[in-house]
Amino acid sequence: MRIVAAQDYDLRREVEYGSPEQNEAVKHIVAAVKQEGDAALLRFTEKFDGTKLEAGALRVTQEELKAAYERVEPSFVTAIAAAAVNIRAFHSRQKRNSWMDVQPDGSLLGQIIRPLKRVGVYVPGGKAAYPSSVLMNVIPAQVAGVPEIVMVTPPATGGQEGIDPYILVAAAEAGVNEIYRVGGAQAIAALAYGTESITPVDKICGPGNIYVALAKREVYGVVDIDSIAGPSEIAILADDVADPAYVAADLLSQAEHDEMASAILVTTSPDFAKACQREVEQQLAELPRKVIAGASIENYGVILLVNSIEEGIDVINRLAPEHFELIVENPMGYLGMIQNAGAIFLGPYSSEPVGDYFAGPNHIIPTNGTARFSSPVDVDDFIKKSSVIYYSKQALLENGETIMELARKEGLEGHARAIEIRLRKEGKVE
Amino acid sequence: MRIVAAQDYDLRREVEYGSPEQNEAVKHIVAAVKQEGDAALLRFTEKFDGTKLEAGALRVTQEELKAAYERVEPSFVTAIAAAAVNIRAFHSRQKRNSWMDVQPDGSLLGQIIRPLKRVGVYVPGGKAAYPSSVLMNVIPAQVAGVPEIVMVTPPATGGQEGIDPYILVAAAEAGVNEIYRVGGAQAIAALAYGTESITPVDKICGPGNIYVALAKREVYGVVDIDSIAGPSEIAILADDVADPAYVAADLLSQAEHDEMASAILVTTSPDFAKACQREVEQQLAELPRKVIAGASIENYGVILLVNSIEEGIDVINRLAPEHFELIVENPMGYLGMIQNAGAIFLGPYSSEPVGDYFAGPNHIIPTNGTARFSSPVDVDDFIKKSSVIYYSKQALLENGETIMELARKEGLEGHARAIEIRLRKEGKVE
Repeated sequence: MRIVAAQDYDLRREVEYGSPEQNEAVKHIVAAVKQEGDAALLRFTEKFDGTKLEAGALRVTQEELKAAYERVEPSFVTAIAAAAVNIRAFHSRQKRNSWMDVQPDGSLLGQIIRPLKRVGVYVPGGKAAYPSSVLMNVIPAQVAGVPEIVMVTPPATGGQEGIDPYILVAAAEAGVNEIYRVGGAQAIAALAYGTESITPVDKICGPGNIYVALAKREVYGVVDIDSIAGPSEIAILADDVADPAYVAADLLSQAEHDEMASAILVTTSPDFAKACQREVEQQLAELPRKVIAGASIENYGVILLVNSIEEGIDVINRLAPEHFELIVENPMGYLGMIQNAGAIFLGPYSSEPVGDYFAGPNHIIPTNGTARFSSPVDVDDFIKKSSVIYYSKQALLENGETIMELARKEGLEGHARAIEIRLRKEGKVE
Repeated sequence: MRIVAAQDYDLRREVEYGSPEQNEAVKHIVAAVKQEGDAALLRFTEKFDGTKLEAGALRVTQEELKAAYERVEPSFVTAIAAAAVNIRAFHSRQKRNSWMDVQPDGSLLGQIIRPLKRVGVYVPGGKAAYPSSVLMNVIPAQVAGVPEIVMVTPPATGGQEGIDPYILVAAAEAGVNEIYRVGGAQAIAALAYGTESITPVDKICGPGNIYVALAKREVYGVVDIDSIAGPSEIAILADDVADPAYVAADLLSQAEHDEMASAILVTTSPDFAKACQREVEQQLAELPRKVIAGASIENYGVILLVNSIEEGIDVINRLAPEHFELIVENPMGYLGMIQNAGAIFLGPYSSEPVGDYFAGPNHIIPTNGTARFSSPVDVDDFIKKSSVIYYSKQALLENGETIMELARKEGLEGHARAIEIRLRKEGKVE
């Protein structure tokens, strides 16, 4: 892991969202599913997943769900249920009420807050098939009150026996029982446009590979999407009070996700930097996913030296990392200075996996600098608001002429007349 | 305006977001601005707006802002200031606090809520240059606490004398003083990537033509965007208690926006339907924008007959209209049944222009059925959240092994070890 002065390092990292060929392929898949429905779904599933299915077999049966429980350890069921309790408790604190403001003139103005009706959760296969992500997508939607939550996932993530049983158990523990074995861009298209087997949804969330990401982008507007996730990131700002072994382990826990993941340490102490560098090397050598983690550390890992914690915070704000650990004396004293970070982990015991799995906050967090303007998944992602205007007669009589003035200045005489016709009837204008 | 039975009418309306040629043109413009900065901005401004500018002249000067006040009526300044007060009051009620949940084991879990740092507001030229939209975009951002709000608008919306002075006064009244005379896809690209003259923003909002919409879609991810607005819509559900003249005037106030706008009346009463039909014809004949409004009514206007108010509400929920007026006896009695509508106007005095200009709720509202999953612009659109996790030593010792279990089931040994190394140090595991 290189050690460089922060001012000599280009913090920007431009992530390309797919090649023109990938974009074309996705457009083709989405259009075909929109047009042909299940027939296209089955064709692409055979082509890309190597699984030949009948339309009737797309949906996972209750028997399969039950059978999945037989294939996982009881300790896993206990652990995932405990995590679900915490995630549910944290998200429950985000619920908001509809509100109404009663005006002195008798008018009522407010916002109605309602859950979305139907949400689709994508659960990827391959190295990113995470039961924890099932909870992190499903529970906020449930807390919001979404009555229909449906899951899609590639058909053979668990090998010959079909979908990974840990995924199925997590879904069942979270309370999802409408699950389809379909993945990739074709699954996203099915959720957006519907097919004979799959009713369309209002919003699609969940991570996926580049084809899934491009498909979500393609259907955005027809349905809502959560966000287009880039590679996962951690940035740690630490000084001598931190334990280099902890810091190295936390950097590696991010790096092992993906060769594209980035792990950045920012520190005021050159000695501490060297100690962390050594620890990363030692721990990396022992890691089962050392090839992945090593590539990530090699290509995107760096230790940045700064002159002060404040300069370090400035680096963090420019990075806007997905995960940010602050391991210094009195981390709370710096919390107010952190402008841009998806999730902030404070102190030596707040290791990133605590948040990834268990503490309660969501682990779906903006990547690639987008914490500048976006937020971890939460209950707000599964609600919609309607404005409510009940204008009283008195309010209209008092303000009608001002409204007409504004409408006429915009050249919208029809708008002015909609008010005028009422004022005339009430004898307010001639 | 046709009268048809609701069950015979296809409520879906598919709006295409641009032709392949328009998409290509926008990609080219965005790439050129990203690459060449101001030089490309000036070239496209000359090409598309017919205005030759120097880079130094892109920014509107304080003198121009002052001069704009001389070019508008004092009554307009009074009216726009009064509207701003109401809009500010309504949006101020949406502000939320950061929060922290103190756990019995000493852990702290919460969300920090912060404003975005810099926001760009697009104000279109042509028939959609609305001072009211300036307020509706700028004020929620201000209430959220956004410190830098910048506006872009085509250079000659007010003809030979440059930008429409009503737009400039609205901007000044809202408190914006960083304004650039640039429009179209090139303005969106400049806000997203920055140029020598324009510092990039975190979010772009405001309506625009198809090129602006496509450009926003193109830069989504680099910055946040508000939404891609389709043609404006009104749906009115009314029965005999309503005045056909009011209903017709409100339908036309929407229809006059745009040939593509849609105005739909849903009613239980065939007689009332005919009365409204006559009123629309009569009022349309007198309307200055009768060509636009007539085309809208002809192509997208319809009166739908239903058998009950409840069936009418069901039609509305399937339409998910941008604006929805409910003019029946006791409209509040139906409010809870309305699932999908951007803004709900209740009773005979809540004419849509009341909300367009003055009452306080935002007039930027989801179109094209997207009220199913999205919301009017509000303060939430200009904030971002960070999760905060301060995990106590006690919490880690108690839950560490559960976290490790979950990490290992996902094959993420590095995650498990980041916990284990701490438990080992504390003597919790060997």
